[in-house]
Amino acid sequence: MSDDDAVAAAVAAVADRVHPTDAERRRLDAAVDDLLERTRAAVSDLPVEADVLQVGSTARGTWIRGDRDIDVFVRFPPDLDRERLERYGLQVGRAVLQDGEEEYAEHPYVTGEYAGFDVDLVPCYRVDSASDIRSAVDRTPFHTTYVADRLDADGAAEVRLLKQFLVGIGAYGSDLRTRGFSGYLTELLVLAYGSFRDVLAAAADWRPPVELDPADHAAETFDDPLVVVDPTDPGRNVAAVVSEANVARLTHYARTFLADPSPEAFVPDPPDPLDPAEVREHLSRRGTAPLAIRFDAPDLVDDQLYPQLRRSLDGLRRGLEGAGFEVLRATTVAADAAVLFVECATGELPAVERHVGPPVATRSHATGFYETYADAAVYGPFLDGDRYVVERERSVRTVEEFARERLLEVALGAHVEDALREGYGVLVGDEVATLADAFGVELARYFDPTP
Amino acid sequence: MSDDDAVAAAVAAVADRVHPTDAERRRLDAAVDDLLERTRAAVSDLPVEADVLQVGSTARGTWIRGDRDIDVFVRFPPDLDRERLERYGLQVGRAVLQDGEEEYAEHPYVTGEYAGFDVDLVPCYRVDSASDIRSAVDRTPFHTTYVADRLDADGAAEVRLLKQFLVGIGAYGSDLRTRGFSGYLTELLVLAYGSFRDVLAAAADWRPPVELDPADHAAETFDDPLVVVDPTDPGRNVAAVVSEANVARLTHYARTFLADPSPEAFVPDPPDPLDPAEVREHLSRRGTAPLAIRFDAPDLVDDQLYPQLRRSLDGLRRGLEGAGFEVLRATTVAADAAVLFVECATGELPAVERHVGPPVATRSHATGFYETYADAAVYGPFLDGDRYVVERERSVRTVEEFARERLLEVALGAHVEDALREGYGVLVGDEVATLADAFGVELARYFDPTP
Repeated sequence: MSDDDAVAAAVAAVADRVHPTDAERRRLDAAVDDLLERTRAAVSDLPVEADVLQVGSTARGTWIRGDRDIDVFVRFPPDLDRERLERYGLQVGRAVLQDGEEEYAEHPYVTGEYAGFDVDLVPCYRVDSASDIRSAVDRTPFHTTYVADRLDADGAAEVRLLKQFLVGIGAYGSDLRTRGFSGYLTELLVLAYGSFRDVLAAAADWRPPVELDPADHAAETFDDPLVVVDPTDPGRNVAAVVSEANVARLTHYARTFLADPSPEAFVPDPPDPLDPAEVREHLSRRGTAPLAIRFDAPDLVDDQLYPQLRRSLDGLRRGLEGAGFEVLRATTVAADAAVLFVECATGELPAVERHVGPPVATRSHATGFYETYADAAVYGPFLDGDRYVVERERSVRTVEEFARERLLEVALGAHVEDALREGYGVLVGDEVATLADAFGVELARYFDPTP
Repeated sequence: MSDDDAVAAAVAAVADRVHPTDAERRRLDAAVDDLLERTRAAVSDLPVEADVLQVGSTARGTWIRGDRDIDVFVRFPPDLDRERLERYGLQVGRAVLQDGEEEYAEHPYVTGEYAGFDVDLVPCYRVDSASDIRSAVDRTPFHTTYVADRLDADGAAEVRLLKQFLVGIGAYGSDLRTRGFSGYLTELLVLAYGSFRDVLAAAADWRPPVELDPADHAAETFDDPLVVVDPTDPGRNVAAVVSEANVARLTHYARTFLADPSPEAFVPDPPDPLDPAEVREHLSRRGTAPLAIRFDAPDLVDDQLYPQLRRSLDGLRRGLEGAGFEVLRATTVAADAAVLFVECATGELPAVERHVGPPVATRSHATGFYETYADAAVYGPFLDGDRYVVERERSVRTVEEFARERLLEVALGAHVEDALREGYGVLVGDEVATLADAFGVELARYFDPTP
């Protein structure tokens, strides 16, 4: 079997999972027709003009089988003030989706079910170009038009394969928890390289920074590992949110898939959750000093929560390192509780720490240092080469002490800091095994990490 | 009391310790006269011409009270072959010092007692200049002449003060154990700066590299913290052996003495030896993981032994650091036994160690790394940013294991390596306290270090 044939076989094997059936398409088309009609009717009751359009992957034919999201946008004139846009938007939304609920992103929209589909009904401004947008959603219609004009049915099928592949490797989604590839980015990659297989072949050889500029109109330089200049907006990198690791992840799995094409690559394979005994086994096998800070997760959407958790984890990590602990690995997980988890090489440090002073030759500094420590240091000052050195008492000797006494001094996300001020638990050593009750899968990922 | 007066008072208080009495001088002069006469008589029996001269600190009037060393040199013509120089030298030496013993430096000489003085009777070559020497001792007569021509009785007294001060702070002696200031260097410093007090005032402000060139004839540049170009040899730094720490030490004690002149500065103050219980107390207070390697000291003179011990200690230290241990402090001591002593922050490391691979983008490296570790690593490969990372089994987890299994792999001095191959003891934790039986004073210096 040639490489191409092997890829084709793997792709064929996942066709049922990836491509919507004709019946599904017909149901979708019918639902969309109804929704657009009902929305236009609701709009005609408003005292302003507005057009109605379908956007998103279902509008572009690039949705994966089973996805049930229909996005309907109502575009208002750009001179409409924001307060009225929001009011009219909600009015139309409630008229169309009678059981719908209001959601708040940059501005409010209505979300609800219609004929078995999940519908978002979103107001936006009809601006002249994607460079003139007044809020992020104004950009979406440009993306839909750009892709719909260029992507035929075959191309859409290639996009679906790529999306499903990214789902399989855990790199699909531009939310700030995943920091992966958005649907639009996936579409642009297929348009740029030609097919699913071509995208993988290119990604297998990516050497970041990778730069694509489909419209050849980049208006600035971007400092990201993957840059795909938005063809509808020269000032925007569509891949800005994609993390270094997710770029590397696609490269890694592109190589392994092309070397050995398997339908399994398209299927997420979450590990079995660990139980507390298995966590203890890992800890004993690793011989490390784990520390977990457990607290009530701040009430934030994931797009706000995860950046804060990561910033806080980074602060904790740097705090521990600054206090002399060596951090082997760290992660953060959240559900109802949030956890900052850090694994140190050792949990206890000596009672004294080395503190290197100035060269003796720098007279005023050196004399100041010597006089400061002549009576205060536990050991020294003595000479090491041309410098004074002292050994002073270490204020924090264990990771547990650090967690109890210094945690609020490290750089934390603001809401995480607030939550920690309300109280937090400190788990060290085998105590962290209890986290398996709530985070067994996450701990399995941590203790059996893959690319 | 002015600063000068305070210095004068401190100096006066140590006069008895520093300056030879008139009676001592008379005894010395008489002994030297006799020795020179006897030596000339012995030389006259030789089949070659040779002149006889007194060198060293007793020749220059710069010896410290109680020093009993007389150096007599016999200078042979430079065309005499080495074998005969050695034979004639020993013949004269044995004739003059009937109970003397032969010693071997660059070439053999005779050492013995005469009228209560310790006498070295050394053969050398009468070369035209110190740049033409055939062995290191040929330089000495030039030094004696240079200093004797320039240093009057008052200057000699200043030199004695500086020598005694350097003895007091532990920085006197150009042997390779001390790596301090030689007598000749001390004399040149007084000649350069004017007086004991002037040397201290200058040293208090030294900013290495400090360069003095009394004859203004430096023939090369020297990469040492203190450079005093030999006025009798433009290619030699008289201070080449002085360690960075000893330069800083003189600077430090010059400042403290000038700020608060005290006769105690001139008196070495060795600490009381620690007993094993006191060592254990220190270890408990420090909370560190000590390691001592004890072995039979190689049979070498100190000038060979200590550089080898230091090199070996450095190799051990770097070996431990390379294996992941953090070294807080280290020292080496020797008597019949030699010891490499290293104090680590922690004596046990995790079972796994982080090993960072190449960026995934570097395809052939990355693939090679991934394939190597896909089955071999304990954890991973996984992604950290754009790189593969694995956690592999650490081959050495404790300092004791390192000492038992890896010691002979580190960079060691050749004779130390030979001695270790014969066998060595490993002491960890409180076991090192037994070293106090042989090295109580050295351990006291280590555990109560001063500049």
